[in-house]
Amino acid sequence: MNNEDKMRIDIITVMPEMLTSPLNTSILKRAQDKGLVDIVIHDLRDYSQNKHRRVDDYPFGGEAGMVIQIEPVDRAISHLKAQREYDEVIFTSPDGEVLNQPMANTLSLAKNLIILCGHYKGVDYRIREHLITKEISIGDYVLTGGELPAAVITDAIVRLIPGAIGDEQSALSDSFQDNLLAPPVYTRPAEYKGWKVPEILLSGHEAKISEWKHEMAVKRTIELRPDLLKD
Amino acid sequence: MNNEDKMRIDIITVMPEMLTSPLNTSILKRAQDKGLVDIVIHDLRDYSQNKHRRVDDYPFGGEAGMVIQIEPVDRAISHLKAQREYDEVIFTSPDGEVLNQPMANTLSLAKNLIILCGHYKGVDYRIREHLITKEISIGDYVLTGGELPAAVITDAIVRLIPGAIGDEQSALSDSFQDNLLAPPVYTRPAEYKGWKVPEILLSGHEAKISEWKHEMAVKRTIELRPDLLKD
Repeated sequence: MNNEDKMRIDIITVMPEMLTSPLNTSILKRAQDKGLVDIVIHDLRDYSQNKHRRVDDYPFGGEAGMVIQIEPVDRAISHLKAQREYDEVIFTSPDGEVLNQPMANTLSLAKNLIILCGHYKGVDYRIREHLITKEISIGDYVLTGGELPAAVITDAIVRLIPGAIGDEQSALSDSFQDNLLAPPVYTRPAEYKGWKVPEILLSGHEAKISEWKHEMAVKRTIELRPDLLKD
Repeated sequence: MNNEDKMRIDIITVMPEMLTSPLNTSILKRAQDKGLVDIVIHDLRDYSQNKHRRVDDYPFGGEAGMVIQIEPVDRAISHLKAQREYDEVIFTSPDGEVLNQPMANTLSLAKNLIILCGHYKGVDYRIREHLITKEISIGDYVLTGGELPAAVITDAIVRLIPGAIGDEQSALSDSFQDNLLAPPVYTRPAEYKGWKVPEILLSGHEAKISEWKHEMAVKRTIELRPDLLKD
């Protein structure tokens, strides 16, 4: 992969320190070291024109919590857009479109992405109306801020870039890629405290093992997530 | 809150360095500093009896990827259980029960929780059958490991502990707590590049503002997430 094709993800946040360790370990570190992706974290406060580097203010209409202002966000996004074209400007929000594997697959084909992390009580709604192209939720629960969702989205996308994980088979046999949950996996020892590995897996019969795995995947999907089989 | 009631969350992982920054910034740091919760990260390798501190091995039946072994996991969980009682031993997995706000609410009432992070191709299935009491997925997508999900679950739970976020109102008016998405929020300036804040919010009529917020919450929920209104 040449540099022209390298993916770039810019993350804008008021809590840059929250993202340093998840984005710089494991697969995400390796993908960056291999030159497959650039992940750049921007401190929103660097785009404040306030002498105290403030980026939030009280909400209009009176309510608890603080709201991120449009000015620094507009400045940060404009600064990035002046340098390159972006496929999407993403905002992480519990009321966005819910992230799933097909969405991660699509996003993994993008070239440049901006992710704006919400924080405090939220961001000025005009940001969402005028500057954001895609709102993503990682699930129906509320978190302290959009930093963990940004890390989750980044991780889900980057691991799909060819070469990011050691063995490409490993991503193709994941849960969800074929609308089936993964079959159970086992490793040594074959017996532990009387709990045994299914005999078929020790048999050496490749075809039968493969059939068993498929059966187990279907069985577990029917039991645990029948909704996945509907599509 | 006295020490007897303090929540404790033990996280077992092969990538402890991935969790340091998310668990030690923002609300999670403050909650620990205030004595509301102890979050303890355990390196699974510390429980390996292998001289190279290995905790994974090849899967039986031949497949790509490595599998976490039962022995070190059993040792880690047994070590913790010998010291205190745990409400749940959680495993983060894409095929677990999908995390939502009611589940986060329930878990926030627990006293002691263990969260085992999956990694590589998965964990030996006997761990899930015999040692785990609750499997949680944070959504229908695959990640590099269970570390980000463990951070997400911890964040979703800890912010609900009374005193963890500055203004308790702030958590009660979140999306999902009343099955409605949050209404739009705005802050200064009232006009930016011609984009104006809704006039009602500048009116000072508390009752009308409150009515408008409720209407907007219902409108946005109907438009974006009608499924939330079904229950």
